[in-house]
Amino acid sequence: MAFRLTPHERGFYPLFTRAAENIVRAADDLAELVAADPADRAEPARRVKDAENAGDVLTHEIMVKLNSTFVTPFDREDIYRLTSSLDDVVDTMEEAADRIVLYRLGTLPAGITAQVEILRRAAAATAEAMPRLTTMSELREYWVHVNSLEDEADSVYRALLVDLLAPPDDAPPGDVLTILKIKEVVEVLEEAADAFETVANTVESIVVKES
Amino acid sequence: MAFRLTPHERGFYPLFTRAAENIVRAADDLAELVAADPADRAEPARRVKDAENAGDVLTHEIMVKLNSTFVTPFDREDIYRLTSSLDDVVDTMEEAADRIVLYRLGTLPAGITAQVEILRRAAAATAEAMPRLTTMSELREYWVHVNSLEDEADSVYRALLVDLLAPPDDAPPGDVLTILKIKEVVEVLEEAADAFETVANTVESIVVKES
Amino acid sequence: MAFRLTPHERGFYPLFTRAAENIVRAADDLAELVAADPADRAEPARRVKDAENAGDVLTHEIMVKLNSTFVTPFDREDIYRLTSSLDDVVDTMEEAADRIVLYRLGTLPAGITAQVEILRRAAAATAEAMPRLTTMSELREYWVHVNSLEDEADSVYRALLVDLLAPPDDAPPGDVLTILKIKEVVEVLEEAADAFETVANTVESIVVKES
Repeated sequence: MAFRLTPHERGFYPLFTRAAENIVRAADDLAELVAADPADRAEPARRVKDAENAGDVLTHEIMVKLNSTFVTPFDREDIYRLTSSLDDVVDTMEEAADRIVLYRLGTLPAGITAQVEILRRAAAATAEAMPRLTTMSELREYWVHVNSLEDEADSVYRALLVDLLAPPDDAPPGDVLTILKIKEVVEVLEEAADAFETVANTVESIVVKES
Repeated sequence: MAFRLTPHERGFYPLFTRAAENIVRAADDLAELVAADPADRAEPARRVKDAENAGDVLTHEIMVKLNSTFVTPFDREDIYRLTSSLDDVVDTMEEAADRIVLYRLGTLPAGITAQVEILRRAAAATAEAMPRLTTMSELREYWVHVNSLEDEADSVYRALLVDLLAPPDDAPPGDVLTILKIKEVVEVLEEAADAFETVANTVESIVVKES
Repeated sequence: MAFRLTPHERGFYPLFTRAAENIVRAADDLAELVAADPADRAEPARRVKDAENAGDVLTHEIMVKLNSTFVTPFDREDIYRLTSSLDDVVDTMEEAADRIVLYRLGTLPAGITAQVEILRRAAAATAEAMPRLTTMSELREYWVHVNSLEDEADSVYRALLVDLLAPPDDAPPGDVLTILKIKEVVEVLEEAADAFETVANTVESIVVKES
């Protein structure tokens, strides 16, 4: 009888893919929230919250599998780290959605739409890369791409901070609490971009270790 | 002659327990500080500072042992990470205590008392779990518990931010510098809750690796 | 024929040293920027940006070598982490330089000069330590030194926050946006000090693992 991989061993891959697809959904809902009229934000925010819960269920499923699997496709600790970092992405997006609603913000600056659009592209790149973990191939372009998206997110983030804190001298003075609320949202969205980079760095370090 | 574990090998466990008990003391002192009249905060703050120093001594003791021990009870790197993350908890609590005193804050919002109460519960759970590292048993409920405490801390934190930045329209306008000072304290206390979660995640990843 | 190490294996060390020397240059340029007249900040800021780009090139060079080297001088994952943490240092310094320019800040508080001076000392200590990785000797004093520099940075940082948020009652009221802008710069400089500590902690964990 020929040697074959146990079903358990390969069962991790579809779960990583599902976690990444869940992130795609959360990013789409967050984009809808940001594009919506302030009065219509509750519904997409609720769906981002649902995605966060779905992410928690997937994380739990992976952890249970990890505890019951003898031979894992790569280091146990790396499976743990990849799972945690995917979970952080959706947590951060939910945090941003929640703040926009709780702070009862009015129209958002265009830079926030740009931040969320970058998150959607990072989500798509992540979901597209996860299935390639099975063969550990062609992952380099993925992490290079996410790193460059993070650079782009960083530029948008810096421009937003300048608009908020150092507006042109002839601009009407902004309300300080509004500035602080928008600054919080902008910072959490930047954390989400960083969280995608952490996922990509985790994948890179797995590939580096296994190479 | 029967094989037996070297004394060194097992000597790490009491040190982790002592580090966690030190955290319990720091959390108690922080709770006392937060409950005290603003004029009486210096004394409990000094004790939180003492706990931070005691934590540094314990960290140093573990590191010296690590460098002189050939066979360790689990991965050297994990001992290092567990020690660092326990140290981060007490550092963060000291940072919060210090800011409350240095900013000469008046009466604190009730949410801060709630944050510190959650830290006390996380400290108790951590101190109770550390001795179980010797057998690696029944640690799952510990990290699940600390993760749910962190969720609770996160809710309290978000509510505090809303109170600070988006108060009801009929509330008297707050002083912006006071808002910024309280926001700093609230954020550092949230970091302390995150630091407990990092300890729990480190324990989880050790168990996952050894399982 | 005698056994000898492959050239590749030892080729990592000069790259770590060059990355640290690049950090020394970035710290010097940052110090020049902070000492300059506000009108003369663009030129040193451009040089900090150049150092960030040079750091990215070095990071890429190390990663390519890592992917093409079979036997590495220490754990692949640790090479990865050391490289990333060195890169974070220069990224954070560039972020601080960029904000000072973009926010069009006037004269900076003396505490910011003190923060940058500590960064220069941490940079010098790091550059001096990197060549000692080849023998893994006398690294303990390095990480102890950087940890104590981080303590010093932390004190300066806390004093700056108190000056900004809780100035003496008889001080003239500051402009809130200016306070927020300086607070951002001060926080990013504190992150740079933390980034040096992360490099030192990474070195410590490598030594602990190899010992």
